Amino acid sequence: MSDAKEKPADPAPESSVPKAVVSRLSLYLRELQHLVRDGHETTSSTQLGKVLGFTDAQVRKDLAYFGQFGYPGIGYRCDELIREIRRILGTHRAWPVAMVGAGNLGRALLGYKGFEQQGFRVVAAFDIDAGKVGQHIEGVPVYNFDRLAEVVREQAIQLAIVAVPAAAAQAVAEKLVAAGVEGVLNFAPVTLSLPEHVQTVGVDLAIELEQLSFAVVNRPEKV
Amino acid sequence: MSDAKEKPADPAPESSVPKAVVSRLSLYLRELQHLVRDGHETTSSTQLGKVLGFTDAQVRKDLAYFGQFGYPGIGYRCDELIREIRRILGTHRAWPVAMVGAGNLGRALLGYKGFEQQGFRVVAAFDIDAGKVGQHIEGVPVYNFDRLAEVVREQAIQLAIVAVPAAAAQAVAEKLVAAGVEGVLNFAPVTLSLPEHVQTVGVDLAIELEQLSFAVVNRPEKV
Repeated sequence: MSDAKEKPADPAPESSVPKAVVSRLSLYLRELQHLVRDGHETTSSTQLGKVLGFTDAQVRKDLAYFGQFGYPGIGYRCDELIREIRRILGTHRAWPVAMVGAGNLGRALLGYKGFEQQGFRVVAAFDIDAGKVGQHIEGVPVYNFDRLAEVVREQAIQLAIVAVPAAAAQAVAEKLVAAGVEGVLNFAPVTLSLPEHVQTVGVDLAIELEQLSFAVVNRPEKV
Repeated sequence: MSDAKEKPADPAPESSVPKAVVSRLSLYLRELQHLVRDGHETTSSTQLGKVLGFTDAQVRKDLAYFGQFGYPGIGYRCDELIREIRRILGTHRAWPVAMVGAGNLGRALLGYKGFEQQGFRVVAAFDIDAGKVGQHIEGVPVYNFDRLAEVVREQAIQLAIVAVPAAAAQAVAEKLVAAGVEGVLNFAPVTLSLPEHVQTVGVDLAIELEQLSFAVVNRPEKV
């Protein structure tokens, strides 16, 4: 099969798409953004797959969950595919995000440029430390955690990042849910237990190091 | 197939194992660690899979890449499977790790308890800021970046975390490689280009938020 364009025949309902496919969409998006920065206007499933270490068939199969995006003899138009993937991921519009915890990790995340580039704007941070409340960190106002519900409603915040110590994470997440937040990105090293309608993604930074140690221990030339 | 124990018949050479399987090993390990903390001595592929949202067949297939770890009528012994997975991941021994960059992100990562729990001990941090050099952050000494090669050799450091601004990341990574580091965990939002024998894992924190926005946009009840 080529990257030929067809009417999106019968794309899968998005909720049935495997998680691994959705995370590869993010990788395709980053690679397309690199290509555009380097002056490329079009690409192919072969080129996209090669950089990321996937087969061209894998790339086409992943994208086919959502429609047909290629053109015969051209491949993919980078700008168009970027727009489509952002629409699928929901990042074609900016998300206002709340950051709970303005300690080292919260501060680091407030300064992380990658969020804004991808459509996430942290508009409010919360802490219980009176020394931090009222400050601006990286341009973001720090509110007393008491004011969470009020600020979340005022700013129509749907997503929140939890960057508090493990012992506080569950209680913080419950307050977020009560305030109307619908998605929680959790950096605390605990598993949150929240109502089913609330989406949670946990970030375990040690997993990345484990993948690295596996790769180092099992380098091909050593086997 | 049951979780029956057999002699590791013919496990795959580790370098041919798909990356997705290796990252699931980390998830199995975390879940086993939770089970042990909760007082469980044994578990099954069904139980392990259920919590993580995988089928029992998937769990068994993943583990079968590395051998046979179950016992008939018992399932998996948690402690034993933890030991085996750590051996496979290379985290049965402690890795001394270097942190380059002691800004907000570096400081946050130095305070991240999850690393040490999983066998990674950050033993040295490096920065070019004279105001930071000589300090201890979370008990870790901060050295002048000039002393990288010397300290890496002295402490036999093989893994390093790059937490510097994007513009500096490639140059920093090249110095790490010249000093003998074999694996680089990169938090800077750029793709590093390093010799093939050096393993790199890039962390893109915005990907996690994209997965979250997709999940919120496509909640089953909305489709």
